[in-house]
Amino acid sequence: MAGSTFGELFRVTNFGESHGPAIGCVIDGCPPGLALSEADIQPELDRRRPGTSRHVTQRNEPDAVQILSGVYEGQTTGAPICLLIQNTDQRSKDYGNILDTFRPGHADYTYWRKYGLRDPRGGGRSSARLTAPMVGAGAVARKWLRAQYGTEFRGHMTQLGELPIAFEGWAHVPNNPFFAANASQIAELEAYMDALRKSGDSVGARIEVQATGVPVGLGEPLFDKLDADIAFAMMGINAVKGVEIGDGFGVVPQRGSEHGDELTPEGFASNHAGGVLGGISTGQDLRVSIAIKPTSSIRLPKASIDRAGQVTEVVTHGRHDPCVGIRATPIAEAMLALVLMDHALRHRAQCGDVRHTLTPIPAQRG
Amino acid sequence: MAGSTFGELFRVTNFGESHGPAIGCVIDGCPPGLALSEADIQPELDRRRPGTSRHVTQRNEPDAVQILSGVYEGQTTGAPICLLIQNTDQRSKDYGNILDTFRPGHADYTYWRKYGLRDPRGGGRSSARLTAPMVGAGAVARKWLRAQYGTEFRGHMTQLGELPIAFEGWAHVPNNPFFAANASQIAELEAYMDALRKSGDSVGARIEVQATGVPVGLGEPLFDKLDADIAFAMMGINAVKGVEIGDGFGVVPQRGSEHGDELTPEGFASNHAGGVLGGISTGQDLRVSIAIKPTSSIRLPKASIDRAGQVTEVVTHGRHDPCVGIRATPIAEAMLALVLMDHALRHRAQCGDVRHTLTPIPAQRG
Amino acid sequence: MAGSTFGELFRVTNFGESHGPAIGCVIDGCPPGLALSEADIQPELDRRRPGTSRHVTQRNEPDAVQILSGVYEGQTTGAPICLLIQNTDQRSKDYGNILDTFRPGHADYTYWRKYGLRDPRGGGRSSARLTAPMVGAGAVARKWLRAQYGTEFRGHMTQLGELPIAFEGWAHVPNNPFFAANASQIAELEAYMDALRKSGDSVGARIEVQATGVPVGLGEPLFDKLDADIAFAMMGINAVKGVEIGDGFGVVPQRGSEHGDELTPEGFASNHAGGVLGGISTGQDLRVSIAIKPTSSIRLPKASIDRAGQVTEVVTHGRHDPCVGIRATPIAEAMLALVLMDHALRHRAQCGDVRHTLTPIPAQRG
Amino acid sequence: MAGSTFGELFRVTNFGESHGPAIGCVIDGCPPGLALSEADIQPELDRRRPGTSRHVTQRNEPDAVQILSGVYEGQTTGAPICLLIQNTDQRSKDYGNILDTFRPGHADYTYWRKYGLRDPRGGGRSSARLTAPMVGAGAVARKWLRAQYGTEFRGHMTQLGELPIAFEGWAHVPNNPFFAANASQIAELEAYMDALRKSGDSVGARIEVQATGVPVGLGEPLFDKLDADIAFAMMGINAVKGVEIGDGFGVVPQRGSEHGDELTPEGFASNHAGGVLGGISTGQDLRVSIAIKPTSSIRLPKASIDRAGQVTEVVTHGRHDPCVGIRATPIAEAMLALVLMDHALRHRAQCGDVRHTLTPIPAQRG
Repeated sequence: MAGSTFGELFRVTNFGESHGPAIGCVIDGCPPGLALSEADIQPELDRRRPGTSRHVTQRNEPDAVQILSGVYEGQTTGAPICLLIQNTDQRSKDYGNILDTFRPGHADYTYWRKYGLRDPRGGGRSSARLTAPMVGAGAVARKWLRAQYGTEFRGHMTQLGELPIAFEGWAHVPNNPFFAANASQIAELEAYMDALRKSGDSVGARIEVQATGVPVGLGEPLFDKLDADIAFAMMGINAVKGVEIGDGFGVVPQRGSEHGDELTPEGFASNHAGGVLGGISTGQDLRVSIAIKPTSSIRLPKASIDRAGQVTEVVTHGRHDPCVGIRATPIAEAMLALVLMDHALRHRAQCGDVRHTLTPIPAQRG
Repeated sequence: MAGSTFGELFRVTNFGESHGPAIGCVIDGCPPGLALSEADIQPELDRRRPGTSRHVTQRNEPDAVQILSGVYEGQTTGAPICLLIQNTDQRSKDYGNILDTFRPGHADYTYWRKYGLRDPRGGGRSSARLTAPMVGAGAVARKWLRAQYGTEFRGHMTQLGELPIAFEGWAHVPNNPFFAANASQIAELEAYMDALRKSGDSVGARIEVQATGVPVGLGEPLFDKLDADIAFAMMGINAVKGVEIGDGFGVVPQRGSEHGDELTPEGFASNHAGGVLGGISTGQDLRVSIAIKPTSSIRLPKASIDRAGQVTEVVTHGRHDPCVGIRATPIAEAMLALVLMDHALRHRAQCGDVRHTLTPIPAQRG
Repeated sequence: MAGSTFGELFRVTNFGESHGPAIGCVIDGCPPGLALSEADIQPELDRRRPGTSRHVTQRNEPDAVQILSGVYEGQTTGAPICLLIQNTDQRSKDYGNILDTFRPGHADYTYWRKYGLRDPRGGGRSSARLTAPMVGAGAVARKWLRAQYGTEFRGHMTQLGELPIAFEGWAHVPNNPFFAANASQIAELEAYMDALRKSGDSVGARIEVQATGVPVGLGEPLFDKLDADIAFAMMGINAVKGVEIGDGFGVVPQRGSEHGDELTPEGFASNHAGGVLGGISTGQDLRVSIAIKPTSSIRLPKASIDRAGQVTEVVTHGRHDPCVGIRATPIAEAMLALVLMDHALRHRAQCGDVRHTLTPIPAQRG
Repeated sequence: MAGSTFGELFRVTNFGESHGPAIGCVIDGCPPGLALSEADIQPELDRRRPGTSRHVTQRNEPDAVQILSGVYEGQTTGAPICLLIQNTDQRSKDYGNILDTFRPGHADYTYWRKYGLRDPRGGGRSSARLTAPMVGAGAVARKWLRAQYGTEFRGHMTQLGELPIAFEGWAHVPNNPFFAANASQIAELEAYMDALRKSGDSVGARIEVQATGVPVGLGEPLFDKLDADIAFAMMGINAVKGVEIGDGFGVVPQRGSEHGDELTPEGFASNHAGGVLGGISTGQDLRVSIAIKPTSSIRLPKASIDRAGQVTEVVTHGRHDPCVGIRATPIAEAMLALVLMDHALRHRAQCGDVRHTLTPIPAQRG
């Protein structure tokens, strides 16, 4: 209820602070008999960890994950799986100078007002670092969904600041530091980020994530709609300010005659809906876009107040991502996987694991 | 878990079908001692009910609400409050012709695949009619929040199809059938809808809702962020495909130096954040925008399949809103109120009803 | 969270007051495709309704149940099932004289202290009448469990006041007003109750309920053990003060060599455990006993205080059960069914509906 | 949902196995600003740890607790508190001989049937060792409740096997290995246990726990009654087979005229109810008794089957408590504290922290 648990049946409880001894999560409800080891999880963590390029924070964290429980002789037992990640590079002193002030756009202020005290170490719970255990939990969900249904997850950055990034192919995504499905614009993006970093400023980004091989029938009316839970998961990622399913805000000027995806014996003829109708998956690809705001920690001065309410000026030093969106792709993929995993278990609770309702029908893959 | 309950501490369980004998909800967790009668609820239901203008469905439903429990001598007792609304105008025959086919863009198909059977009466649970009990529950939340914190809710349509609607003042909203904060464009909007209706097509819309007088400190890290729960609530409204908080997708090209709202002793100097930082309310106005897709039930033919998988064509008769967005404003206001109500109770569970953390600070009202 | 919802996946939300217009419940999460009508539910309600013999309250309530939603053409659709029961015999005046005092042993006092106000009409939510919707929901669970697994539920009174009731056979239970599995002691029990009623006093009782044909593997470690949830369900029934599983308090003097049920290729050789080991069902019969306290509403005077804290004396008139235990058997059976139903759905969520883990092994039927 | 989380608002998620690298829990929802360190928790863990006398398992575990998160500069921050306890003495080999058989009375069999596999290391999740993190979480709850309301918890063994233990005074409890509130019978109990241990058998016990200084008004009708949640918590403790509140099964022969606790201006005149009426606390002492079965792991041979269903004989070696009841008192106290903590937060969510409804009235302390 205090917000540290995600999911209803595949429950992930997150703990730890950015600069405490360790962070981690407890996954409760994982089906038994899934082959699992750290080797299934670490690669996903490596995709989002800091220090991988000059365009992200230089904080140097190996983010090595350890499975503390729930796995015996290489298989999940049905018992809770605790994933632990030690914090190794903390440097709390970097934050000393903002102890008594509030960074504009940062959660400093609201945490202090909510709890009446403040843990300044790297933003404590408000740090994007707390997404690491979710990426780990997402890797577990991904492995199970792949084995059960052939579901896969993928994502790419579609816009960096004012620069749209053309889709040239999924194969390009791992070959650049931006998760861009693009090869021709990378030099431009590098130069853009170098200039931004020099300026001491930060910028926003737009990310799209997709799931393919999605079973039909996942999602609950009325409130726990699949797309509602996806919106919940995405808006819960640090710095996200907007979420779209399918055509998203593009539906506003559309006509019904244009929007409704026609059905054919071979499947849907289009995918304006983004893979969800009435809150339930259609078997088409899930298509989700998110807007990520510019990092609030910048090296340019901004007006603020201190805890006494006096006028002050804030300049943030320390190591920050000039565009938090750059590392957001694996996080958004993981959260999407966690939502699908939870709904897959919820579906079989009420409807049983009825194959014929879960076999996806052919669908155009956008 | 099957998705019919909204909220954790102010829990609203929704029941009924569009064309069954009745619809309603059970509100559990309402604080005791709140003065409450049907007269507090009916006006909100009247704002969203059908048949109020030629631009919405002509289905004629009084939507008269009855309080079945939880109120004694005009006060809430702390016991669950059951709101019941009889269905009086059902006309199931209108839907006979679509019994075996699937309307493109409609939940017919996914419900059938999920549950293995189909309740064709007006879409059953997928009907927007099921939002009526939520508007009723929202009225209860609104009354409590107003009494406790002076919180108020308001909303308006900001775009109809391709037509942006200029903000001319909140006072205009009740004076036109579109919930437009505008007087000068109403004739244009009327003509637009008349033409659309004649064409047999439907169109999308964009709605903005706000909360004012919001206590500081509502919302839970990590997952049950206030904005995440708002996104969940909004994306759960029928036909919503996108949700924005504050500047929403407008943050993508922004710089951090521009986005971060500066603090002054008098409050925040701007409200790009939309009233939420780190998932916790700042005390500023909450600003939320949603995109609503065009109604899937249109009078123009579309290709589809029947339950046997054979090619067919679908034309929907019966009475439908050519723009479901027109009646969405009071629904979105109600869902926003339910989210705030739940978080107000969650806040006092963990942090106590500590006045000083809940007094809003002055904020620019956008 | 305010306690009106029972279950996690088969969720029953109860509403109404003893003397309001109606009582009922909403069942969310029922599997689709279950044949269901009022005729499946009414017989269970008739077993617990008042006025069936001179030994229970003479309040005359038909307790006619109506299905308001969730069923279409005689089948559950997967949508929430609302059961409504009108209150027809209310006579609030009977309670006028206790409006300002607190009946010793009754919830008057604690409700008033918790909520700061009081609904005196028949005890409001604290009335045993609120178990009627649970008996209705239990009937739905029983039908599904019978169809899926052949699970059956049965119960009998094992002690009335100081009189132990010998087990002579299940066939006797429906043939006497006490739910006694006995024929030879009925005259004695009738005389006992007649004398008690004349005296104006009330008495306690002991009830045993069982489930047969229980699937193996239901129940969750660590906290949501099957027996823990059974204890929760039973202690939640009005007036229950003790719960036992299997040998219950009889285990205290036992040796491990005597208690542990040996396994044979044909099944367990005994059932001291009562059908649960480590919180998980063994496939043997579930055996549960409960202790029910004497009714607090009696015609004999007791010392008490009024709302002003002044000394007073309370004598309860009106129509009350001299032994609430007499009508408790169908209630306890229903609650046991609701617990098993919920755990059956929980099991298939995590472990799938794996037949071989759910086939019961032969077990001695105690 | 898979049963590893206890509580709704003060949520404790338990993880780890008896013979894995570590066990622990995550506490989510703890109010901020509570002074907390390991020194507040370790003493409670020491009360239940093994190896403290010859009458309990000789497994040698320091059970040293580490706070991994949620505390900053000696105060809780409102973030989740992770408690970690390393397992240091594992000796899995002790269990080798029971790998393929099922110990009568043990959870071996049901875990294997539920999950389709088996973690034989010390019973994995079914080990009483998993109660250690709960005792740690209970210590946090106890500190907060003491500070807020002056609530205290205490317990003692009231029967060991067939030997009733007379109550001679709370002061004796820490002075003997049995948690007996008695000095004169200790030699007898020691001799009894020595003989039992030599025999290779085990025995049951009866424990009573109490809470004093309980606020009035805690507990939710209808289902989440305070006593129902206590029954849930107690029956969830390993080996518990029965739970009583107040007079428990003693109410069966009672008359209403005898059972109902009269109210006086000075408080209740007696406490048959055990501190709960209608599921809500009265402000009197909570009185709870539990029955604990004899340990299933004994050195005497019992008939069983192996995984192939063949007849075999089981003799358990290794280090086991001949009476698990001996270490149950601090566990039951902790679970009782967790229930009260959760309900204290639930009460203030719905009703606010209204002092006048929470001031206990004088009550006879049984």
